[in-house]
Amino acid sequence: MKLASFVHQGIRSYGIVKADGMIDLGQRLGDRYGDLKSLLAADALNEAQQLSGETADLRFDGLEFLPVIDNPGKILCVGMNYAEKRKEFDQHNPAPTLFVRFADSQTGHNAPVLKPRHSSEFDYEGELAVIIGKGGEDISREAALSHVAGYSCYMDGSARDWQHSWFTAGKNWRQTGAFGPWMTTADEIPDPHTLAIRTWLNGRMVQDDNTASMIHKVAELIEYISTFTSLTPGDVIITGSPGGVGKKRTPPLFMKAGDRIEVEIENIGHLSNVIIDAPAHALAAAH
Amino acid sequence: MKLASFVHQGIRSYGIVKADGMIDLGQRLGDRYGDLKSLLAADALNEAQQLSGETADLRFDGLEFLPVIDNPGKILCVGMNYAEKRKEFDQHNPAPTLFVRFADSQTGHNAPVLKPRHSSEFDYEGELAVIIGKGGEDISREAALSHVAGYSCYMDGSARDWQHSWFTAGKNWRQTGAFGPWMTTADEIPDPHTLAIRTWLNGRMVQDDNTASMIHKVAELIEYISTFTSLTPGDVIITGSPGGVGKKRTPPLFMKAGDRIEVEIENIGHLSNVIIDAPAHALAAAH
Repeated sequence: MKLASFVHQGIRSYGIVKADGMIDLGQRLGDRYGDLKSLLAADALNEAQQLSGETADLRFDGLEFLPVIDNPGKILCVGMNYAEKRKEFDQHNPAPTLFVRFADSQTGHNAPVLKPRHSSEFDYEGELAVIIGKGGEDISREAALSHVAGYSCYMDGSARDWQHSWFTAGKNWRQTGAFGPWMTTADEIPDPHTLAIRTWLNGRMVQDDNTASMIHKVAELIEYISTFTSLTPGDVIITGSPGGVGKKRTPPLFMKAGDRIEVEIENIGHLSNVIIDAPAHALAAAH
Repeated sequence: MKLASFVHQGIRSYGIVKADGMIDLGQRLGDRYGDLKSLLAADALNEAQQLSGETADLRFDGLEFLPVIDNPGKILCVGMNYAEKRKEFDQHNPAPTLFVRFADSQTGHNAPVLKPRHSSEFDYEGELAVIIGKGGEDISREAALSHVAGYSCYMDGSARDWQHSWFTAGKNWRQTGAFGPWMTTADEIPDPHTLAIRTWLNGRMVQDDNTASMIHKVAELIEYISTFTSLTPGDVIITGSPGGVGKKRTPPLFMKAGDRIEVEIENIGHLSNVIIDAPAHALAAAH
């Protein structure tokens, strides 16, 4: 089952993705579960499953995708987690590299990704996103995958000239992290480490690897993270980028307005976004 | 005016701190502003001010302090921001060092600070906390202090053996960041860079500096941070620790169960906490 968050005629909702459109769970279950995170928190994926045979309520061309989880409590991002990427960045520390994204740094499938005004090194990273279904702390790696609700694609847009070894300023510009198009539930991905993962910039393949190449596997990451902080339903772990990022190419290859960036993960989905220049005071205007 | 968040007879509230007790704003204004963050978001400090001459509703010994802001949208933490600390850690990068704390890593004045079970290097850092009153992005340093609601003390408890150059795992153990006892409103602190800041471990002074020694001043930090992410009322910026931390002493000096850690900032307040060993599954049990 594939689950997405979206806006339809100005109303935020979520639903089941079918070949020909969306089953609107916001309309069907919204009195009990207001959004996808609430559905996960109520452990009610089975209620969605029971509706998955229905015909679609909405056509895709009438809706706008939101980040799969629009308001995660925690977004933990793993850096330097593929062998090629570690070589590119000369990283040898054996502990998982972890930084944090704020929820307002995200955007949805087909929505604009905003190139930061003050960055001339806006780089792409195609990544596997893990969505937590069942929370906890001190989760063992053996039990970890049972805490996963599903998987999605993530384009972890990075202002390299603001990144430093602590990441925060490079990874939190508004609408730089594309998350979608949807979450494929974990029952359809028995092993998250057998999946081709590829990124294209303007149709040119710039990253091509397999989630088998991850240094710290999904289960190990959940074990590590839940040792020091509790995980709750809807939390997101972004598992790191393969090699091939623009910063380490000769010459470097960065994203600019008009570019299209795409991330595809086998059996999960294909995320596509166009880059635009961030308008001044984008969020200030919306507030 | 000094404002605090607290629990009284099982009910979460907030109030004005007086010499002899607390004016309970939750009871007096709670129908409009449910917590201190809501009061700030409504730009309603003046309504609190009008009540500040009343007599106290509650005695201090009947209430438990919460973190000044219990549920900030964003907690941004500055590292390596005092000259002595930069020398101790051999840090030369001119950009502000920034990492993130999650809200559940906090605790209040007089509440236990939990020593992480898997750390043998649990260190103290006494810091000035800045609470945002008026949100925004692209805030200039000239305008920045008008966005500050007030100031507080913070004890940024740090598991050094989990810290790395990306900080996340060292700074997010549950109940390791003590925040309080209260916020002193900005009208009483015209210049946040003239304040003595001191830390005591078991009565021994271990840090002794002045906020004048900050490398990146509060106004500059707000300018820098609001360039890449929007700030909203109740967000917290922790401005970094003076030198004298335990990790860099000979021999090293770390916190253990039974220790008392205290942070005092001139004209603001005196924060005091006792360390206890983190129980297994502390949060899991509470959920």
